[in-house]
Amino acid sequence: MPDTPKKIDPIRPTDDEARALAQGLITEARHGALATLIDGAPFVTRVALAPASDGSVTTLISDLSTHTAALRAHPIASLLIGEPGRGDPLAHPRITLQVRAEFLEKTEVGKANYLAAQPKAQLYIDFADFRLVRLAPSGALLNGGFGKAYRLTPDDLTA
Amino acid sequence: MPDTPKKIDPIRPTDDEARALAQGLITEARHGALATLIDGAPFVTRVALAPASDGSVTTLISDLSTHTAALRAHPIASLLIGEPGRGDPLAHPRITLQVRAEFLEKTEVGKANYLAAQPKAQLYIDFADFRLVRLAPSGALLNGGFGKAYRLTPDDLTA
Repeated sequence: MPDTPKKIDPIRPTDDEARALAQGLITEARHGALATLIDGAPFVTRVALAPASDGSVTTLISDLSTHTAALRAHPIASLLIGEPGRGDPLAHPRITLQVRAEFLEKTEVGKANYLAAQPKAQLYIDFADFRLVRLAPSGALLNGGFGKAYRLTPDDLTA
Repeated sequence: MPDTPKKIDPIRPTDDEARALAQGLITEARHGALATLIDGAPFVTRVALAPASDGSVTTLISDLSTHTAALRAHPIASLLIGEPGRGDPLAHPRITLQVRAEFLEKTEVGKANYLAAQPKAQLYIDFADFRLVRLAPSGALLNGGFGKAYRLTPDDLTA
C-alpha cells in the first residue's frame, strides 16, 4: 500500500504559480456551481458567469430561480469553478470561492460586460425578472490536483 | 422585448420524460459539485461519483478534505450533477439533489462497486484517510433547460 497522505500538511504555501492558476480558472470560467443556503441547508445550482478584472465574477439570475431568493435572504455563498477533463475527475484543477452576492443595477455597461462573455444571454438579459449579481470573493480554496491545495486571499485573485 | 417568463409557473408537473432525464443524469455522473455547510456558510467542492441502483450515489473522500469534516458535523448536503456542453451553459440539463451523507464501511463489495465507475481511484481507495460515503437523495430540482424545471421525489429517481 502506498504512503497515506496523512503525513503531509494538505495546504501548501501560496506561490505565484498557485495565484496564476487561480486567476486563470476564474478568468476562463463561463459557468460554475453556486452553493446557497435554503432553510439552513446547502443548495447547489448551475450559474453562467462573466469574469471581472478584480477577481470577482458576475452572474445573471432570474427571480423565478431558487438561488435568487436564497441569495437575497443570505448573500454569503460559495462558487466552484474549473471543469474536469478525462480520467480521474479529482486530478484536474478547480477553485472554491467563498463569496458575497451583491445585486447590481442593470446598466448598459454592466450588460455589455456580461454579454461579452455570454452572448447567448442577449435573448433574456432584458427580461424584468433577470438580475445581474456580482459574486465578490472573501477567500478561496484552490485545488490544483492531488496534494496541491492552497488557501488564497482576495489579493491573491487579482492579477 | 420578448415576453418575460414571469407569467409561467416555473415548476412543471413531473412526467416520465423528466424522471428518465433525472435518472440518466445520475447514472452517468462521474463527478459533481458537493455543497456542504461550514461555520453556517455554504461551501462547494468537486467530488468523484459512482452511481447506485437506488438513485443514490457514492463518493470517496479524504479526512484531510474540508468537505469530509463538514459532512461529519452536518450530513445534510446538496449535489449538482450534469455537465454543460457548448453554447449557453444554462441550456443544458442538470439536477440538484438534496442529500444526506452516510459514511459507509469500506467493504470489498463497496470498493469494487466504486472502482467499477472510478478505476483510477485504485491508487488511493485503500488509504486509511479515505472514506466511502453514500449520498442519499431526499428530493431534487431537475432543470432540463430554460423553462423546464421539475421538483422530484426519491421515488422519481429510482428506475
